[in-house]
Amino acid sequence: MEGEPGCSIAGTLEVIGDRWTMLILRDAFRGVRRFDEFQRDLGIARNLLTDRLTKLVEHGVMEKQLYQAHPPRFEYRLTPRGVDLSPALVALMRWGDKWLADGAPPVSLLHDRCGQPLDQAFVCWTCDQTITPLQIRSDKRTA
Amino acid sequence: MEGEPGCSIAGTLEVIGDRWTMLILRDAFRGVRRFDEFQRDLGIARNLLTDRLTKLVEHGVMEKQLYQAHPPRFEYRLTPRGVDLSPALVALMRWGDKWLADGAPPVSLLHDRCGQPLDQAFVCWTCDQTITPLQIRSDKRTA
Repeated sequence: MEGEPGCSIAGTLEVIGDRWTMLILRDAFRGVRRFDEFQRDLGIARNLLTDRLTKLVEHGVMEKQLYQAHPPRFEYRLTPRGVDLSPALVALMRWGDKWLADGAPPVSLLHDRCGQPLDQAFVCWTCDQTITPLQIRSDKRTA
Repeated sequence: MEGEPGCSIAGTLEVIGDRWTMLILRDAFRGVRRFDEFQRDLGIARNLLTDRLTKLVEHGVMEKQLYQAHPPRFEYRLTPRGVDLSPALVALMRWGDKWLADGAPPVSLLHDRCGQPLDQAFVCWTCDQTITPLQIRSDKRTA
């Protein structure tokens, strides 16, 4: 599969495709940082939470920072690489909300300044316009 | 997890989170429609391909259409529900390209009309502007 675009998709899913990992990331985007907060919010077993946070740190998606020295206490923050997962999480969530959920979606994503729902779009900055999925061409790189 | 936003993300991954499924969808977006074409392009075993296509049809993501009566021949097309997966696949691919790939990404996504690379952005149509991940607020619905 070397050089296949599926690699990038499959590779991303190897990092974030686990359900608990997704939920931890979602909490992190909402500002959760401390082990006990994740644990309480998700109702996840402590050993599973430790495992998932350790993997996220290993993948460079989150970083562990000391926030108190005595006794030592750590918090987990999204790195720039982690923040950059936002389009993927939002896209997966929006599709599920639209096509799988019954009734109103459990969480709304809003523009913080105006409080209105956000949209996610493909943009061509050259033409200065949004484009539809059917206006996308994919070019395979030839060696 | 009823009512949890993780549901929408996890639910979406239950439909498309399998590696072969992702590759089939990627081919479908590139215009591949026939069983033998998918099979040749992906080098996938025929029983696995049958299994994945059947599931995609069951989930309403693809539909099977007769394109020749004698002998009967079918092709697989993305439904509107399937086309709507485009933002999720593109977002997963872009993150992998940016953070996991060595060198240039194997596939470029271009605006078909101008041939320039496309971008994917969060948009607030009320404010008529693109917004960053850190300008998103998520509101949990309260019952």
